Amino acid sequence: MITLHTWTTPNGRKISIMLEELGLPYEIKTVNIGKNEQFSPEFLSISPNNKIPAIVDDEAQGGPLSIFESGAILTYLAEKSGRFLAASGPERYQALEWLHWQIGGYGPMLGQLGFFGVRSSEKAPLAIQRFTEESERLLGVMEKRLAVSRYLAGDNYSIADMATYPWTIAASTFLKDILGESLASKPGIQRWLKEIGERPAVQRGMQIPKLA
Amino acid sequence: MITLHTWTTPNGRKISIMLEELGLPYEIKTVNIGKNEQFSPEFLSISPNNKIPAIVDDEAQGGPLSIFESGAILTYLAEKSGRFLAASGPERYQALEWLHWQIGGYGPMLGQLGFFGVRSSEKAPLAIQRFTEESERLLGVMEKRLAVSRYLAGDNYSIADMATYPWTIAASTFLKDILGESLASKPGIQRWLKEIGERPAVQRGMQIPKLA
Ligand SMILES: N[C@@H](CCC(=O)N[C@@H](CS)C(=O)NCC(=O)O)C(=O)O
Ligand SMILES: N[C@@H](CCC(=O)N[C@@H](CS)C(=O)NCC(=O)O)C(=O)O
Repeated sequence: MITLHTWTTPNGRKISIMLEELGLPYEIKTVNIGKNEQFSPEFLSISPNNKIPAIVDDEAQGGPLSIFESGAILTYLAEKSGRFLAASGPERYQALEWLHWQIGGYGPMLGQLGFFGVRSSEKAPLAIQRFTEESERLLGVMEKRLAVSRYLAGDNYSIADMATYPWTIAASTFLKDILGESLASKPGIQRWLKEIGERPAVQRGMQIPKLA
Repeated sequence: MITLHTWTTPNGRKISIMLEELGLPYEIKTVNIGKNEQFSPEFLSISPNNKIPAIVDDEAQGGPLSIFESGAILTYLAEKSGRFLAASGPERYQALEWLHWQIGGYGPMLGQLGFFGVRSSEKAPLAIQRFTEESERLLGVMEKRLAVSRYLAGDNYSIADMATYPWTIAASTFLKDILGESLASKPGIQRWLKEIGERPAVQRGMQIPKLA
């Protein structure tokens, strides 16, 4: 059985989407980052960077395996199942380049925009400007791609789409006041959002964790 | 032959280190990001996110292949050569988790600290504080790991170390005024820096590109 340690935030949803897509049985453990539960010794022993998501797979080859970092977890689950990431060839590396683009750029930059532009009561105009511009630039890069390609990695839905979808939903909800207009004017992204959003596994994954 | 599109910055050096470690023949094309060469149509056709590094491998399986994003390139070269990333098992995912930690956290946060704390003439104290604290936290996470593990991924030198080394050098040079003291007080990181820095391939890779 796989245990997913997660919270109600975009990085956690990448993994619940993937697990729902794969139809693998899994168990949820919530880590309330608003209550600093990510700093508990128990959680740190599987996620030393004190961030969700993390998984423990009791049935991994060679014994129980814990993994942190959403990009590593998605790659693990894709390789374990043989799905949503080609085993070799150009398609594999197209998925990995867009996965890393999400992990290294799109996620962190939208995340900083959320802090400086929405969450922080103290305002730093230079930072708001920088992360707004960078987020707009990244949305432009994504639009160019999705205007000519059905999915980020090409013709096939992959872990790159699963990584990018929850952050694009965050852009259109939590970050709506800043990025909403720009998003609305991007037909490639809108088409892709609709297509991904219609997948039942994505709909289920986006509801996880359900809080009592 | 592999062509590496790069510049004198940490993300580019990850790849020149890997190519030197592998002893693969390669050619350099410089992309002077100070002169906005990353926005040329020719470069954008291989790196749509307008960032170095990118590679083109003329001899990839199935024809010439271009790849952007340093994490995807490192993974490609490791899988092509069968080196510096285990093909399966726990060691593989330990390398991938620390690789993603570098790509998604350590690199972007130190990069933002470089902007707000060093490069920008306009000062935003909130941003300087945030990225200083986050960089210190990340160095603490790295120290905890390297205090008990020879390399980031365990007993073996891997692409995770190659990704993290040039950024740790940046922390101790470009970011020295902010992070120098903190770095100096971390024996695990110092031991690792010394060990990695003694590798001839790393020494050669860190000199690339040589500018005329
Ligand atoms: N690069 C990481 C980022 C994970 C991340 O930022 N997680 C956030 C929630 S979305 C978190 O746990 N924050 C708590 C903290 O930083 O203390 C990944 O992709 O897994
Ligand atoms: N996540 C990317 C980051 C690459 C990156 O930030 N490259 C910088 C130089 S170190 C760059 O090309 N900047 C130019 C620009 O953004 O216009 C990777 O790891 O490859």
